[in-house]
Amino acid sequence: MTTPNKASLPVIKRLPKYYRYLLGLKAAGITSISSRELAAQMGTTASQVRQDFNCIGDVNGRQGIGYSVENLISILEQLLFGDGERLPTILIGCGRLGKAVSRFITTNTNGYTLIAAFDVKEEEINHRTVNGIPIRHIDQLEEFCAEHHPKVAVLCVPRDGAEQVSGRLVALGIEGFWNFSHYDLSVPYPEAVVENVHLGDSLMSLGYRLRNRG
Amino acid sequence: MTTPNKASLPVIKRLPKYYRYLLGLKAAGITSISSRELAAQMGTTASQVRQDFNCIGDVNGRQGIGYSVENLISILEQLLFGDGERLPTILIGCGRLGKAVSRFITTNTNGYTLIAAFDVKEEEINHRTVNGIPIRHIDQLEEFCAEHHPKVAVLCVPRDGAEQVSGRLVALGIEGFWNFSHYDLSVPYPEAVVENVHLGDSLMSLGYRLRNRG
Repeated sequence: MTTPNKASLPVIKRLPKYYRYLLGLKAAGITSISSRELAAQMGTTASQVRQDFNCIGDVNGRQGIGYSVENLISILEQLLFGDGERLPTILIGCGRLGKAVSRFITTNTNGYTLIAAFDVKEEEINHRTVNGIPIRHIDQLEEFCAEHHPKVAVLCVPRDGAEQVSGRLVALGIEGFWNFSHYDLSVPYPEAVVENVHLGDSLMSLGYRLRNRG
Repeated sequence: MTTPNKASLPVIKRLPKYYRYLLGLKAAGITSISSRELAAQMGTTASQVRQDFNCIGDVNGRQGIGYSVENLISILEQLLFGDGERLPTILIGCGRLGKAVSRFITTNTNGYTLIAAFDVKEEEINHRTVNGIPIRHIDQLEEFCAEHHPKVAVLCVPRDGAEQVSGRLVALGIEGFWNFSHYDLSVPYPEAVVENVHLGDSLMSLGYRLRNRG
C-alpha cells in the first residue's frame, strides 16, 4: 500500500473535492464510477484521477466496473478526518470576517471544533459571543492555551496583528494555521502547517485573468 | 517583450504576492532587490522568482544591483489593474459570509467596484444594505444587469443556489466569478473565468496535513 504521507501538496488540495463529489454520487445511489466519468464531472482528466488515487492508498479500480464509491469515501475519510477526533481550534480576530469563517469550524463536517475566540477590541469582547463561544481578550491567550491545548488557530486579523501573535501561538503549541491575514508566517515558522486564504490575492488573480484574456 | 498573456495560472496566482511584497519594500524605502533576497523574504527560490518575472514582461534584473522595485510595481499594476478601470461587480447572497467578503470588493485597492447585491431572503432584502449598497431581490437580476452591465459576480450562496443562478449570470454577460459556493461552475461554463474559494476544502486540506505529518 502506498503511504498516504507521500501525497504532494497539490494532490492533498484536491482530496476534499474528490470527497465532495463522491458523497454526491453516494447520495445519488451510485456505487461505482470510472476515472473517466469522475474526471468528466469534476472538470479534470482520467489520468489525473488515477494518479491522485494511486497516491492515497489501496485504491484499485476494476476493469469495466470502476472504483467503488464506498471504498473511496472510506479511504478519504480516514485521511481527512483520521479517527474522527476533531481538532481543537481557536479564532484570533472576531470582526466580520472572523465571525463568518468561524462557521466552517463550528460545522461538524470539517473535522474541527471551536473552543475559544480572542480579540483586542473592547466592543467585541464584553459579553459578546461568536457562534455561541464567548470572546476573550487576547491577554488571556497564554492562560487559556496552557489549560486547553488548542492545536489550530484561525487568523482573521490584519497583517501586523498576525505578525505579533503568531510567534506566541507557535510557542503555545499551535501546529496549524488557517491564515486569512497577509502575513506569510511559513517564512519565520517553517515547522507550522499553514493554509493561506488570501482573499485580496484571489481577487487580484481573477482581475488579471479577466483583464488579460487571450 | 514576453506577452503577459502567456503567464500560466500558477504564475498568475503568485503575482499578487509579489505585488504585496514589493509595495512593502517601496514603503521601506528600498529601490532595488535581487531575486535571491526577494525569494528569501517570500519563502520561495531565486530561480522561481526569475522564471516568474520572465513570464510577465520586460523585467531585467541588473547584475550586482537587482531588479528595480519601482519598475516591477509598475509592470504588476498594469497587469493586475490594467488602465485602472474597476470591474463592476455584483454580490449574490448577502448572508454573513457575503457581507464579510464584499468588503474586499468595496476596498479600493483590489480593482473592483460593488454595484449591487442580491438575495432571496425577505429579511435580508427589506431596507437592508451591504457596505452601503441596497440589497435587491434576485428577481430583479435580469433588469439590473440589462441596465448596468456588471462583469463579475461574487457567489456566496449554497451549492444549489449557485447551480440555479450561474447560467442566468453567464447569459446576462457575467464573465468572471469569485465563487465561494461548492458548485464547480467551470465544468458547465468553461468560457467563464472562475476563482474558487472553497473554504471547507481549504480546512479539510489543513486537517489532512496536520493528521498525516511525517
